[in-house]
Amino acid sequence: MRLPTLVRMVEVGPRDGLQNEKQVVPTAVKIALVERLAESGLTVIEAGSFVSPKWVPQMADTGELLAVIRRKPGVRYPVLVPNLKGFEAAAAATGVDEIAIFGAASESFSRRNINCSIAESLERFERVAAAALGRGWRVRGYISCVLGCPYEGPVEPAVVADVAAKLLAMGCYEISLGDTIGVGTPARAQAMIDVVTARVPLDRLAVHFHDTYGQALANILASLEKGVAVVDSSVAGLGGCPYAKGATGNVASEDVLYLLNGLGIRTGVDMDRLAACGRFISDFLGRAPVSRVARALLARAA
Amino acid sequence: MRLPTLVRMVEVGPRDGLQNEKQVVPTAVKIALVERLAESGLTVIEAGSFVSPKWVPQMADTGELLAVIRRKPGVRYPVLVPNLKGFEAAAAATGVDEIAIFGAASESFSRRNINCSIAESLERFERVAAAALGRGWRVRGYISCVLGCPYEGPVEPAVVADVAAKLLAMGCYEISLGDTIGVGTPARAQAMIDVVTARVPLDRLAVHFHDTYGQALANILASLEKGVAVVDSSVAGLGGCPYAKGATGNVASEDVLYLLNGLGIRTGVDMDRLAACGRFISDFLGRAPVSRVARALLARAA
Repeated sequence: MRLPTLVRMVEVGPRDGLQNEKQVVPTAVKIALVERLAESGLTVIEAGSFVSPKWVPQMADTGELLAVIRRKPGVRYPVLVPNLKGFEAAAAATGVDEIAIFGAASESFSRRNINCSIAESLERFERVAAAALGRGWRVRGYISCVLGCPYEGPVEPAVVADVAAKLLAMGCYEISLGDTIGVGTPARAQAMIDVVTARVPLDRLAVHFHDTYGQALANILASLEKGVAVVDSSVAGLGGCPYAKGATGNVASEDVLYLLNGLGIRTGVDMDRLAACGRFISDFLGRAPVSRVARALLARAA
Repeated sequence: MRLPTLVRMVEVGPRDGLQNEKQVVPTAVKIALVERLAESGLTVIEAGSFVSPKWVPQMADTGELLAVIRRKPGVRYPVLVPNLKGFEAAAAATGVDEIAIFGAASESFSRRNINCSIAESLERFERVAAAALGRGWRVRGYISCVLGCPYEGPVEPAVVADVAAKLLAMGCYEISLGDTIGVGTPARAQAMIDVVTARVPLDRLAVHFHDTYGQALANILASLEKGVAVVDSSVAGLGGCPYAKGATGNVASEDVLYLLNGLGIRTGVDMDRLAACGRFISDFLGRAPVSRVARALLARAA
């Protein structure tokens, strides 16, 4: 098994996780969560999103959060910016220096999610990326539905590769390949990565798996075998699956870290501190963490 | 990725699963479960155990179950037999033609679980195996704690290989390597398999992973990459973890099948029928299936 020796874990819990949680989390709790996640050794923590508070009330306080958090040196706190209006809000906020833009590899998903075609969305993103790069910010690109779409079913790897190449061309330093509905399995994940790496260098790719069908860690292992060295995850498995109420969503950071630790891959992240972050936010939400590692550690401690 | 084209799934839910469930399940429900599992296409269903009803009341009705179940041609219904007393009970029952014996790769686990050393346990098993083979029965060997022990921590692969070789020598047609506390990760699983296959042919090995730390499917993938083609699992993830209350135990059959289907590996098992078995027993137990696939399918149907 040939694997990277070092993996960067990108923590998406405070944004991708919390935005799918019904219960509104007070800003002070979010701040504590982001600060504790940084103390666990994570170096990239997606802190929030500049979207319409009408659509995503949970993210209405991202500006306030960014103004208040204690920033740990060496840690980045990107925010999601869906359009120019979001960009302007980010520009008016304190301390933004990295944004993420969010494209799709499925026409139906793009239409339903942001009400335009993939091509139109890429034109929008290009303007946002250019404006961000003009300010010296870093830009990360997400692609959703890379292995399946809730409306269309299977997705062509060539479409993923095309969107990835365009995001790269507009200046994204990294493209995160998202299996938004968690339908992927390892061989298909590897085949998709092969097609994408024909257009985008491997060291520009991240993977973002959902555990809806329990396949996330197997898919991450398959991606590591292909040399991918950046993995998105969500502490405590925050977020659920917006396309299947009651199902699992984002893979839990604790479970990813357990896998990486077991493989002898360095991350710089401390399991005890990370698990404590998961317990902190899960306690606040009044439920057990979705992470199996977190549950096992809790059970062992009891 | 080089993988087997065909995998035999060994269903352990009615025995390994139910024996760890506090709530006593009526014989009629167990019979319905075993019969429905056979209808899903599974060809090996561990149906029960001849252990002391004082220790495991849930298994007290195995003889009755065996007398009543409608047997599907081509399906085997092994029962666990821990000692000669169990063997005699199995011999007195109707229709037993395959048993399983259950050894450990950890001295402490063996002492705490069956109150004797590994060497003493193997002597006992040898007598049981000889008696069973003398009746023309098949004998399957389990080894627990192959990647870690709740009392000793990490376990030496050489010990696993030694126990496996001895079980093979006493006539077991197959050795199931069990990560009883679910602490294994893929590289260690592969390293262990490499050490074992120096003593036991690959086509005599099965893997039995627990999902306590969420690693089961990644470990199964790693085992498939090594050529292992028999995988134990438990429908709906029945069983929990007796060493960590509240933690996950046996990997769910539905999740394993989803992985295998996605990899294009044939099993002969029908997902809808298998998931229906999981819902049937979970409904009876009054809780949601542990299987993430089962939850996703339920969520999609709702």
